[in-house]
Amino acid sequence: MNDAAPRPTLEAVAARAGVSRATVSRVVNGGDGVREPLVERVRRAVEELGYVPNQAARSLVTKRHHAVAVVVAEPESRVFADPFFALQLRGISKELTAQDNQLVLLLTEGRDDHTRVARYLAGGHVDGALVFSLHLDDPLPGLIQRAGVPTVFGGRPGWSDGTADVVYVDSDNRGGARDAVRHLLGLGRSRVAHITGALDQTSAVDRLDGYRDVMGDADPDLVAPGDFTPAGGERAMRELLDRCPGLDAVFAANDLTASGALRVLRERGRRVPEDVALIGFDDMLPVAEQTDPPLTTVRQDIEEMGRLMARLLLRGLDPSPAGPAGAAPAGAAPAGVVLPTTLVRRASA
Amino acid sequence: MNDAAPRPTLEAVAARAGVSRATVSRVVNGGDGVREPLVERVRRAVEELGYVPNQAARSLVTKRHHAVAVVVAEPESRVFADPFFALQLRGISKELTAQDNQLVLLLTEGRDDHTRVARYLAGGHVDGALVFSLHLDDPLPGLIQRAGVPTVFGGRPGWSDGTADVVYVDSDNRGGARDAVRHLLGLGRSRVAHITGALDQTSAVDRLDGYRDVMGDADPDLVAPGDFTPAGGERAMRELLDRCPGLDAVFAANDLTASGALRVLRERGRRVPEDVALIGFDDMLPVAEQTDPPLTTVRQDIEEMGRLMARLLLRGLDPSPAGPAGAAPAGAAPAGVVLPTTLVRRASA
Repeated sequence: MNDAAPRPTLEAVAARAGVSRATVSRVVNGGDGVREPLVERVRRAVEELGYVPNQAARSLVTKRHHAVAVVVAEPESRVFADPFFALQLRGISKELTAQDNQLVLLLTEGRDDHTRVARYLAGGHVDGALVFSLHLDDPLPGLIQRAGVPTVFGGRPGWSDGTADVVYVDSDNRGGARDAVRHLLGLGRSRVAHITGALDQTSAVDRLDGYRDVMGDADPDLVAPGDFTPAGGERAMRELLDRCPGLDAVFAANDLTASGALRVLRERGRRVPEDVALIGFDDMLPVAEQTDPPLTTVRQDIEEMGRLMARLLLRGLDPSPAGPAGAAPAGAAPAGVVLPTTLVRRASA
Repeated sequence: MNDAAPRPTLEAVAARAGVSRATVSRVVNGGDGVREPLVERVRRAVEELGYVPNQAARSLVTKRHHAVAVVVAEPESRVFADPFFALQLRGISKELTAQDNQLVLLLTEGRDDHTRVARYLAGGHVDGALVFSLHLDDPLPGLIQRAGVPTVFGGRPGWSDGTADVVYVDSDNRGGARDAVRHLLGLGRSRVAHITGALDQTSAVDRLDGYRDVMGDADPDLVAPGDFTPAGGERAMRELLDRCPGLDAVFAANDLTASGALRVLRERGRRVPEDVALIGFDDMLPVAEQTDPPLTTVRQDIEEMGRLMARLLLRGLDPSPAGPAGAAPAGAAPAGVVLPTTLVRRASA
């Protein structure tokens, strides 16, 4: 362990910079109202002494920890295996860092650990939380609500019933799915199958609904359950080909699912797109570009979703004329921000 | 934002379970000395009410936050791009979770953010820190030392001079490198090149030293600088082939570097291993298995390193007859645990 070397004090910094304690304090907390040459002198003294501001004292002034928790409601192994999460975290990290907030990623081995996550959130270690990849029966949203920490969700929460003040950022999953299926019909395909995502997530439900909006009462055998993973896509594709050998198009719930489906189509001797046209969702690079053929897909801006989540949370934390900190504007219904999607045409459909 | 719904109290849990407050408190803090049927009743009441223990009160009893920070001294984008970190985090996550500690991953955009990381560490939000991928001129170790939080490092810190109580976990980088080069010489190769890692990290320095231990005063043109990435491996391999077209073997500082070198060797028409034998380091899967040909490499158990780091930290935090909490045993020199490496033979050498 490290020896706890004596920490340089605020007084030491003030003495070295030749300014008052109050001036050091103001600079450390953002520098408002301090002239630039003084700010520079204080910054140099802070650096030379290796001064670390006392968080508790700092919080008393700013009422903020300048730290935001990120919770991905998936096991740690999944967080690192699925590039979707890295992209969303990239957007979050850029936005939080730009506003000098520490990104605190709370990892778990699985759902059993969510009580511990809620305990950390309730413990006064962060100013707010960004939570994504929720599943319908997960106790996490309830635990977070009880922890009383301002939260923005990534993806429409399934339990949103219009009464709670829920802020979330989502993509137009249903509209994007409709665009995908219409595109397949426009290519002259008629037996269009769908491999779903994990149906305990609203994004998967919305994409299935979009498929149904266009296909109406299509043969229910044309829909097979997946789970947003390549392995799930392989399983579902085998099932579909066994059941409906005449299918001529597939809309997969995401690009990873499509990549799995593509392997099975090749294995079974179907040419893509000649025999079976295939569309994914996400426009996840490099996945969508490196499949053979490259994937036509529905693009959602995952990094921008992350940025927007962070921006909405920070805006809520910093009091402004728009409303009190940590609360949605008075009288606001569930505040969902839904980003548009775009169809990206490559070779697979 | 969420409405701050009233949080169920310890009293409410006690009433529902029909036990005393003290019993609930003991169960919530580990259940020592409480009979199993009572533990079960309290747990059920906790679950039914959605009780979240008050962290401050809990810490007063246990003097612990039951949270451990992990700091990877790399930008967030690198953390998610290099599977090395995912593996080390997997080991850490398993061990921390098994002992009911929250993994708090502090992400940054780069070195400029390390002061903010130190501030969070000093703020009383975690019991200790696990820090890895340090670079020689990084101010982070000094900042952490001043923050006074017990720390275990992954990889031998470059500034360890035998005076500070530094606990670290490392692999036998030098010994592993020697094994690799000896294996290449044993295959009858004599012009053995080395692509280094990032030489501001001790793991890269140690592997270069191991190469020199065996090769002695070999042509210095046979050593080219890399940076542990595939792109760095490509650049260095081009440089080496231009300078020493007669080279017949390459020891690359890690598998990602070797994968880049392999692409350039193929591009230049060299057959591996016939013309040029190639060895990596890490045994990073799937990288090492999916190259063509698969990589002979020096295996280090990255996940186990992560586990061991967590175990050493937690052992230091929980007072035991061996020594006071947060400190190394009295009189101990820098406590480095160095794990052995193994040569794994595949087709590339």
